Amino acid sequence: MKQKRTAVPLSSPANTHQSVSPYVIGADIGGSNLRLALANGSGEILGRWNGSTAGLVDATMVLRLMRKGVDALLCEAALSPGSLSAIAAGAPGITNVDRGVVIATSYLMGWRDVPLREMLEAEFGVPASVDNDVNLAAIGELHAGSAQGVSDFVFLAIGTGIGAGIMLKGEVHRGSHWTAGELGYMLVPGTSVAPVGRGNPGALEAIAGGEGIKAHWKSRWCMDLTTLPKDATASEIFDHAREHNALAQEVLELVARALAYAIYNTSLVLNSPLFVLGGSVGIHPALGDATRQVLAELGARVQPTLMRSALGADAQLIGAIFMALRTASRKPVLAAS
Amino acid sequence: MKQKRTAVPLSSPANTHQSVSPYVIGADIGGSNLRLALANGSGEILGRWNGSTAGLVDATMVLRLMRKGVDALLCEAALSPGSLSAIAAGAPGITNVDRGVVIATSYLMGWRDVPLREMLEAEFGVPASVDNDVNLAAIGELHAGSAQGVSDFVFLAIGTGIGAGIMLKGEVHRGSHWTAGELGYMLVPGTSVAPVGRGNPGALEAIAGGEGIKAHWKSRWCMDLTTLPKDATASEIFDHAREHNALAQEVLELVARALAYAIYNTSLVLNSPLFVLGGSVGIHPALGDATRQVLAELGARVQPTLMRSALGADAQLIGAIFMALRTASRKPVLAAS
Repeated sequence: MKQKRTAVPLSSPANTHQSVSPYVIGADIGGSNLRLALANGSGEILGRWNGSTAGLVDATMVLRLMRKGVDALLCEAALSPGSLSAIAAGAPGITNVDRGVVIATSYLMGWRDVPLREMLEAEFGVPASVDNDVNLAAIGELHAGSAQGVSDFVFLAIGTGIGAGIMLKGEVHRGSHWTAGELGYMLVPGTSVAPVGRGNPGALEAIAGGEGIKAHWKSRWCMDLTTLPKDATASEIFDHAREHNALAQEVLELVARALAYAIYNTSLVLNSPLFVLGGSVGIHPALGDATRQVLAELGARVQPTLMRSALGADAQLIGAIFMALRTASRKPVLAAS
Repeated sequence: MKQKRTAVPLSSPANTHQSVSPYVIGADIGGSNLRLALANGSGEILGRWNGSTAGLVDATMVLRLMRKGVDALLCEAALSPGSLSAIAAGAPGITNVDRGVVIATSYLMGWRDVPLREMLEAEFGVPASVDNDVNLAAIGELHAGSAQGVSDFVFLAIGTGIGAGIMLKGEVHRGSHWTAGELGYMLVPGTSVAPVGRGNPGALEAIAGGEGIKAHWKSRWCMDLTTLPKDATASEIFDHAREHNALAQEVLELVARALAYAIYNTSLVLNSPLFVLGGSVGIHPALGDATRQVLAELGARVQPTLMRSALGADAQLIGAIFMALRTASRKPVLAAS
């Protein structure tokens, strides 16, 4: 790590971030894990720290955990708290980026109107930014992943649920109420049109999200048809489809079809040339291949390129680092605590 | 008309358009009609002119018709050709606004790569702009219609076909290949998922476009069920639904459902607070009411406001005027012909 820091001299005039102060923290707050990374002014990760958010009932407890992690990272890198110039955090919910408030999350015990930016600035004494985690993942892919050099694209995160980060002219499009990209609720041929209650999966998620895929597998499962267990995960089912298991292929085909329709529809609206598939389910190569095939069958009107996320599970965290660097260069540094 | 011109003195320093030159032409090139308007620097229409585009086999013939119309408008207003400062035209097709080229249209004998801006500038000797007609209608609604003061909204034109003009931060979002807003092809529950051949209606259009509605009516028509003829128009069918005819209500319900799903999906992507319904079919109050009801049933997640176009059939033309005013203020005036 020391080598890396030596390689990027603090006084380098070529890097505006460094002219402010060289170190930032990126944070990915998840329903089960808090992931932190310490990075230098070039966005290079100098250290990582993970903690469990299970059982943390409010944002204050998450902040306390974050303090612990940041202290550990600084200590490990032999840096003082005053070395930090900014922090950025992603949360799995609707986030008002202007006000720095997490409006609502399904995870984290259902945060409501949490002034996360203010809390971070008070805790760490540096400028902070907060955003929805999928939006941060899109920023990560733009700066260091599959979408480098592409100013208009859609990052589609498919894990338990489905959400998108929409990049237009190099900026995240967040919408008038910060909910742009909620593709998990999209209505396509084959989805239910029943109203979705709070906390329930959206129409598309119910088919193409991780939980929906597992449920569908379970409903179709029969021990004569597969060597996989009834409670297989989406990734296991997709692997199984690649091994030519007919039942798994049938499930994959259903998922790919719904997903392709949603990508097609989103393309009709935005005319984005690139979709980056991320998230634990979305990153599976079999899903990308099957989805591409359905899109090709739909015809030439809409043919966006589909790519896998290059950053994988790190996309949000790396996006948070880039947002922190931007925050550092935008705002004056407050007095270090 | 003279009074209007007197009311807006040419030397008024308050109006930047007028400091260039006060008069512009807005043009709406349609598959059956060419509509022109002469406006002053405040966007007030001083005169209108209509001509038929039926049988015109290429853009040169449309330009000749346009010349005739512009000359007539200038003559009627007692203005010299040198009074014009800009012209803007909308075409019913995919348009590269940067290059000023109409890439493709289904109408107008299928224009391909027509350098319309260049042709207009050569013909009229003033700076010109071209855009897709639905995008111009959105610009019209922004400046003088239902979306005044709303920087993010979707103008949904429903006539024979369906298309949208997407306004984000006060600018039209046109997409990487100028096809953003092609909502007529959207796949929603109830639409066909079969590939759409060139020149055929898209999946949503086949249900909710004017021709699709007529075809559906025809297929369900039975003289015992209605006093309307078998070849009724969409508007007549919607009027009939308001008179409580069960068959017409059934058709309206089907259309409203597909349309509401498409609006819901588009809202999920963009999180736009307002949808303006325009076009000869879209402007019918019964359709707006029925669509609003389906959206309300879908739940609170997405609840954009639905409004009727305030400009109606004039939306494109008025959008063209505003685009011409912008063109006049942006570019130096060429030597008048």
